[in-house]
Amino acid sequence: MAACNSSSICSSIRSPERIRHIHRPLSLISSSNVCLLRRDALSVSAGRMVACFASKDWALPRIAAGSAPAMVPAQQEAEARVSTVVEVGLGNRSYPIYIGSGLLDVPDLLQRHVAGKRVLVVTNTSIAPLYLERVVEALTNGNSNISVDSVILPDGEKYKNMETMMQVFDKAIKSRMDRRCTFVALGGGVIGDLCGFAAATYVRGVNFIQIPTTLMAQVDSSVGGKTGINHPHAKNMIGAFYQPQCVLIDTDTLNTLPDRELASGIAEIVKYGLIRDADFFEWQEKNMHALLARDPNALAYAIKRSCENKAEVVSLDEKESGLRATLNLGHTFGHAIEAGFGYGQWLHGEAVAAGMVMAVEMSYRLGWIDGTIVERVLNILKQAKLPTSPPEMMTVELFKAAMAVDKKVADGVLRLILLKGPIGGCVFTADFDQKALDDTLLAFCRR
Amino acid sequence: MAACNSSSICSSIRSPERIRHIHRPLSLISSSNVCLLRRDALSVSAGRMVACFASKDWALPRIAAGSAPAMVPAQQEAEARVSTVVEVGLGNRSYPIYIGSGLLDVPDLLQRHVAGKRVLVVTNTSIAPLYLERVVEALTNGNSNISVDSVILPDGEKYKNMETMMQVFDKAIKSRMDRRCTFVALGGGVIGDLCGFAAATYVRGVNFIQIPTTLMAQVDSSVGGKTGINHPHAKNMIGAFYQPQCVLIDTDTLNTLPDRELASGIAEIVKYGLIRDADFFEWQEKNMHALLARDPNALAYAIKRSCENKAEVVSLDEKESGLRATLNLGHTFGHAIEAGFGYGQWLHGEAVAAGMVMAVEMSYRLGWIDGTIVERVLNILKQAKLPTSPPEMMTVELFKAAMAVDKKVADGVLRLILLKGPIGGCVFTADFDQKALDDTLLAFCRR
Repeated sequence: MAACNSSSICSSIRSPERIRHIHRPLSLISSSNVCLLRRDALSVSAGRMVACFASKDWALPRIAAGSAPAMVPAQQEAEARVSTVVEVGLGNRSYPIYIGSGLLDVPDLLQRHVAGKRVLVVTNTSIAPLYLERVVEALTNGNSNISVDSVILPDGEKYKNMETMMQVFDKAIKSRMDRRCTFVALGGGVIGDLCGFAAATYVRGVNFIQIPTTLMAQVDSSVGGKTGINHPHAKNMIGAFYQPQCVLIDTDTLNTLPDRELASGIAEIVKYGLIRDADFFEWQEKNMHALLARDPNALAYAIKRSCENKAEVVSLDEKESGLRATLNLGHTFGHAIEAGFGYGQWLHGEAVAAGMVMAVEMSYRLGWIDGTIVERVLNILKQAKLPTSPPEMMTVELFKAAMAVDKKVADGVLRLILLKGPIGGCVFTADFDQKALDDTLLAFCRR
Repeated sequence: MAACNSSSICSSIRSPERIRHIHRPLSLISSSNVCLLRRDALSVSAGRMVACFASKDWALPRIAAGSAPAMVPAQQEAEARVSTVVEVGLGNRSYPIYIGSGLLDVPDLLQRHVAGKRVLVVTNTSIAPLYLERVVEALTNGNSNISVDSVILPDGEKYKNMETMMQVFDKAIKSRMDRRCTFVALGGGVIGDLCGFAAATYVRGVNFIQIPTTLMAQVDSSVGGKTGINHPHAKNMIGAFYQPQCVLIDTDTLNTLPDRELASGIAEIVKYGLIRDADFFEWQEKNMHALLARDPNALAYAIKRSCENKAEVVSLDEKESGLRATLNLGHTFGHAIEAGFGYGQWLHGEAVAAGMVMAVEMSYRLGWIDGTIVERVLNILKQAKLPTSPPEMMTVELFKAAMAVDKKVADGVLRLILLKGPIGGCVFTADFDQKALDDTLLAFCRR
């Protein structure tokens, strides 16, 4: 396994005809000086199988199919010094995902993506005391032209609604934000989705930066431009596809994340393995203890590989005409749990975990996967202390009512993401035996 | 002035390098049979200077710079038999504007643009009794696959808000509208803007058809994809650029339009003349009596030429990076009146008329136009019985407060559309003497 240096071009490309794999020093993709980054080394990659490191003093294995870092001390030390940039390739709407430790303290990373002079930071009551001041400092440091306002929203999924979004608009208008302003989402998935939707619709669209502070947001919701809010009867029912200017992931923010939130994010990491990345799933099986112990290298690797998977899928199918739907494994069941149980009762990843178990069970009932996969999924989710069945109050009727208005319904027909074949394979289909769905719902609602 | 027949290609192109001028039988741009149209003849044009008629039995002059139909009886009879299609050229998001008498009774015009099986018609309490049944009939005639639901909203600008839009979402979810559904806006500008924004954001975007029933909506708001709702302090502050599948203009719907609403639409027609089409302005000066008397030919011509102007501008600058802003002549002052006076107190076109007078007066104070233009603008608006000054309650402070949050403000600097040179010329600029603005506000707020 050869390491590559900063001047080499790595090109392990899964879908060469459509995805842009960019692999070059950051200085080539930005006019800003790469030295402003406090990390020693940078890599820029798109897709899932490429990683490069610039320093000549050490070498990390290139991460490719069948390989994963073994987390030995020397490599841990090296990786701790690395910032990774994953590029989401969407033509003239492409953008970088910066991943690294201490990135909140790198003013130029944020400032290069602020187009106008006015910034509105949207955050919540839990995150504001921890990081708002640092983000405002990073936005304004050395740049007296930029004025920053902020709006601090209540924390939780139950506030991801139109009423809360109006608070953002009220503040934006009061602060005289104009069409050249930038909205910055500082927080978890709720803040990112809501702020992104506000940015998409304020004066018909303003600049937008994502600073995800939860594992859930870092590995999934901040990447790919899905924004939106909940309707009382259906999750994420109102929204827009709207891409950010950049996603800035400071992995240090995970230090303040409650255990339950950490586990919630792990559910989405497991998802990537199941739907398209068997090697990553195997790595997770071996390293779940490290993730739960918040080993920074393990977390950084899981975030990077998750973002690479997501970036590749989004580049191929931004508006979810097909492939992108596979990122919703377990989500149809999960969204039903969130809406039925009440938004915020369970975290999103908790509902998705239970939903994935149901989708896996249904796949097994259809004869599409063998029993060992069911066991491995149950095991890894239990290890992460995630739920493996829906809350007791969920009935077949509640599931069916919510699933009838799922966004993946087309012309009245429900389509589901189900596993098929070995781990890493899945299908998005309406072509399944309805009895398998009914039996699955019955089985889980009896428990 | 040569007339052209259906097989000829007219190519009077103003901006040949950028705009797509399409001029061909409708059958070439649609798989549906052109015979399904009940009009005798069809023309398809993009841009402003092209019009063709298919019948060999008569000939209308080609409408080009310096020419306008003189509304002689023979031509009136001929034009009454013509349906026009203006194409808005936006690449793979291009769409037709159908203009004609009796188009609500042509099922295939609507049905060809309905992608899925479910349709939600969004209309209001004034329009529903007049046209809802006919539209439902047109959508379902001969097609039992399509199911139609409708939501009837209160009528008026003051209901163009988030609360009313939630009623659309509530109905859509209750009716189990899925991502393949189609929203149909049946009504004036408020319905079109609100329904369009709902379509842009329901499950992150569904199909959308505009059926404008007011002159304002037919000549302006239904074309070009600007959708949105008002914030209590600023008009159209929340919205999206979202293009419809088609715009269907049945000119017969103007028969039920109150006089005040008709005049409101005329304000936007006057605008097109002032900012870019001197010949059209001269035609209006000569034919205002015919427009006010609802002469169908005059109205059809004004609608067509307005749509051609708008289509050309939108094709060149969809997201309003510059040129498109010129369509907002008088709107910065007008929006201030609407927000300051209270939404719905004045109709949009009434506020725009007063706003245009203010913009023209300011242009004159800057020395950019001569006094005869000021007089001609005052005369034509008075002839249309439109206001030529703001309501008495408007103060300089109210204007300034609203203008500070105008969507055309960038980095804190207000930009205005002002006339310059002969009629048909305008600029979108922040480079003006502030004193001219202050003096203009003082002059109009003292009256």
